[in-house]
Amino acid sequence: MKLSELLALVGGRADGADPDAEITGVSSLHDALPGDLTFLANPKYAKQLASTKATAVLVREDCDLPPPAAGGALVRVASPDLAFAQAVPHFTKPAIVRKPGIHPTAVIDPTATVGKDVYIGPLCAIGPGAVVGDRCVLEAHVVVDDEAVLGEECHLYPMVSIRERCRLGKRVTIHNGTVVGADGFGYNTKVGPEGIKVEKIPQLGNVEIGDDVEIGANAAIDRARFGSTVIGPHTKIDNLVQIGHNVRTGPYCGIVSQVGIAGSTHLGAGVMLWGQVGLAGHLEIGDRVEVLAQAGVAGDLKGPGQYFGSPAVTKRELVRRLHLPRTVENLETRLAALQARIAALETKQENP
Amino acid sequence: MKLSELLALVGGRADGADPDAEITGVSSLHDALPGDLTFLANPKYAKQLASTKATAVLVREDCDLPPPAAGGALVRVASPDLAFAQAVPHFTKPAIVRKPGIHPTAVIDPTATVGKDVYIGPLCAIGPGAVVGDRCVLEAHVVVDDEAVLGEECHLYPMVSIRERCRLGKRVTIHNGTVVGADGFGYNTKVGPEGIKVEKIPQLGNVEIGDDVEIGANAAIDRARFGSTVIGPHTKIDNLVQIGHNVRTGPYCGIVSQVGIAGSTHLGAGVMLWGQVGLAGHLEIGDRVEVLAQAGVAGDLKGPGQYFGSPAVTKRELVRRLHLPRTVENLETRLAALQARIAALETKQENP
Amino acid sequence: MKLSELLALVGGRADGADPDAEITGVSSLHDALPGDLTFLANPKYAKQLASTKATAVLVREDCDLPPPAAGGALVRVASPDLAFAQAVPHFTKPAIVRKPGIHPTAVIDPTATVGKDVYIGPLCAIGPGAVVGDRCVLEAHVVVDDEAVLGEECHLYPMVSIRERCRLGKRVTIHNGTVVGADGFGYNTKVGPEGIKVEKIPQLGNVEIGDDVEIGANAAIDRARFGSTVIGPHTKIDNLVQIGHNVRTGPYCGIVSQVGIAGSTHLGAGVMLWGQVGLAGHLEIGDRVEVLAQAGVAGDLKGPGQYFGSPAVTKRELVRRLHLPRTVENLETRLAALQARIAALETKQENP
Repeated sequence: MKLSELLALVGGRADGADPDAEITGVSSLHDALPGDLTFLANPKYAKQLASTKATAVLVREDCDLPPPAAGGALVRVASPDLAFAQAVPHFTKPAIVRKPGIHPTAVIDPTATVGKDVYIGPLCAIGPGAVVGDRCVLEAHVVVDDEAVLGEECHLYPMVSIRERCRLGKRVTIHNGTVVGADGFGYNTKVGPEGIKVEKIPQLGNVEIGDDVEIGANAAIDRARFGSTVIGPHTKIDNLVQIGHNVRTGPYCGIVSQVGIAGSTHLGAGVMLWGQVGLAGHLEIGDRVEVLAQAGVAGDLKGPGQYFGSPAVTKRELVRRLHLPRTVENLETRLAALQARIAALETKQENP
Repeated sequence: MKLSELLALVGGRADGADPDAEITGVSSLHDALPGDLTFLANPKYAKQLASTKATAVLVREDCDLPPPAAGGALVRVASPDLAFAQAVPHFTKPAIVRKPGIHPTAVIDPTATVGKDVYIGPLCAIGPGAVVGDRCVLEAHVVVDDEAVLGEECHLYPMVSIRERCRLGKRVTIHNGTVVGADGFGYNTKVGPEGIKVEKIPQLGNVEIGDDVEIGANAAIDRARFGSTVIGPHTKIDNLVQIGHNVRTGPYCGIVSQVGIAGSTHLGAGVMLWGQVGLAGHLEIGDRVEVLAQAGVAGDLKGPGQYFGSPAVTKRELVRRLHLPRTVENLETRLAALQARIAALETKQENP
Repeated sequence: MKLSELLALVGGRADGADPDAEITGVSSLHDALPGDLTFLANPKYAKQLASTKATAVLVREDCDLPPPAAGGALVRVASPDLAFAQAVPHFTKPAIVRKPGIHPTAVIDPTATVGKDVYIGPLCAIGPGAVVGDRCVLEAHVVVDDEAVLGEECHLYPMVSIRERCRLGKRVTIHNGTVVGADGFGYNTKVGPEGIKVEKIPQLGNVEIGDDVEIGANAAIDRARFGSTVIGPHTKIDNLVQIGHNVRTGPYCGIVSQVGIAGSTHLGAGVMLWGQVGLAGHLEIGDRVEVLAQAGVAGDLKGPGQYFGSPAVTKRELVRRLHLPRTVENLETRLAALQARIAALETKQENP
């Protein structure tokens, strides 16, 4: 699409810009490459204009910003977000939608129950007594084990495993390779006269996932020893996350990639755990606690509040921790000054 | 089950409790929800009685503990563990057991050898020359590659991959999505006059897994460059663990979720690595070393002993590290006091 | 193979060694077990001779090294690397090679395009409009989703998922369970009078992987929100790595196991990230930056250079950070000495 066509589409103007400039894609200010259209809605990102490589940037009509340093055009419109949303479908393909139907290579146990208007892709395996709710989409290579239950409109991507007796609410989306309901890590170790004996603790519970949960790729959510590991409704879990047995999360939590939560830790509502955070087991984490990336939490945290570092501390403590090298350097300087003053005092006292 | 029925089942008494209270599940003291039966065997957890939401707690006949603050009943029995074990089957479903048989959709190469009383689920793929031992259970969607060998009574869950020529001992259990025997990460990088050249180092070895090993979900254990990556018997590995090429673990190790062990590191017997620990390559870790969560180890560790933090240190060092902010604060206070005393001395010296 | 046969094979001599010693495998000096042949090419590893358990070690003809402490033989040859390369095929099995052909259980959509001399293993699923280039090898249980494109000679191991519209260059190798193109982690959270609302941000882009890339097992590379997540040519990615949406890596990067890179971070050429490193989102990491294991990076890094720790710092800063406990101890000693001197001054001043 030429810039001139874009201007017509979104009802904008771009004074002094080449109307024949080619727009070939859409992007964010930071990620944009030549050919991209992007937008600036929030003035706090205005400084990204200096570095963006975008060919055209949608901005507010009345703004007085300098054009992008790399030479892109400023396109003035009434609402940059709205104009961008209008343009996006011209540069992206529509999402792929599955029509209801069951692929002939899917293996569905005769005792399983499959709802209405369901899509089951090639080579899925649905076990005895399993239930697949209405309008679910199971892409290729999904395994739903014995007596597992999927609510309505769940969307499972290839290689997802739902283990025996686990239960998903409505509108649960799970990306490729994620495992719901593998055994928790639980053993009793006895050291006796005949040597060590490691005994597996049976993991007899399941996983219960609330409505509107989304889980990324290659994550693992272990089944409970007894009862259920629970993921609260509207909670979003990223790739490669580990959730131990008997963990319970509240609603509206966000759990970013590679986080690990050890067994029996309970999260309140709206808890946010950033990338690679680790939580020890048997903790109580209060509502709206936020734990920043790579932090390690070994004790209960009352919410709301932010925690940083390993072991995790408040921002005030973190600042102290990070300033320590400088604080110590200061101490050394002050100590040296005192040393000199004492030496002077000593000399004077010896030779008054 | 009503409380009165439970009392009859386990031969206990619950003075003053409502005999009609409904018990609907079993749980631990910490995880219990209303409706749950739980137990207190070890007095060190007695303080959890204050916060447990359980409807009934099995305790020792002769204990003088206060009833749960939330109103649950104390059920007095001769042995709380035993009584709990008696009650559990009434509240949990029995584990699902596979009857021997091979699903018609499993693809088994004619040159593979399958033992007696084996279960092979839907859509498994067993490659040329592979061997599946007697009484193995391969759930749906398991791949056993060319010339791989499974000992007797292995249990592989869906989406497990056993790569070519890897060998499992007896009674090895592997949960969904785990990969045994992918190539190790090994390249030679040459920077020459014509630019960089990155050459793959062929990974010609395999993985050998000892008897009675259990591995969680979505873990990765790389094949050796030469010889074997070795997992010792009775070692237990949790979800999302990375084990590099040519790693060797002793027997009875415990490797918790998201641990990473780089290539050619060797663990002794009974080594315990807690969640998210990282071990550099080419290390020797002695018997019964324990590395606490999120620690990073860059040098050999003689066992037995505990190590903490990144870089990992002994407990004594860790305490010193963690007390540093306070130690420095103390130093600042002492320094200020000295400064005042010196100033006083100086004043006096000037004006004797 | 007997030692005498090995000597004949590689044209070496081993004065005083038992010619009947049995060589059963090959290994590195560090990993070698009794029965192994190994080699010492780089003199900097000479001290490993003291601890190697190898039965025979190839060394340079003219070296004057002591024989291995554990009793192995020193085998003197003109070029140890070359001799080792000659011996290796006698102790390792050749790699398994797939002959072109499509397994009858593979499900290939009629609208997919499959190139010449392709191998497609059992139970693969190739979606509508997908393209598989000439001479590709897709082992069992590979899923290539709608409109995805694989260049020539790609090799995908079992359980790999290539999601819709993602594109692989030539000679891309991906190990088991890795997911290319799952949705990025992107939500808009609105807290309004009717409560919280979490809205998914559609992930409309794809992943583009350059030529000669290799990716390990159970990794996850998310599709872009718009445009493409890009992996540069010759980049090598290890197991269990997380690459967020809109990340771009340059050519010749190395990304070791369990690294996490958050969304929209861009890496230059030849960037090296060691195990368990975490990179925040929206960063610019310059050419030839190296980030050491477990480090956490929250700001842009100009290359080339090495960074350590969490938060990541230069080596100079790291040394300062690690020496802090000792520096503080020194300060305490010096402070105590000053305190004594001040006390002496005070006493003298009181009693001149």
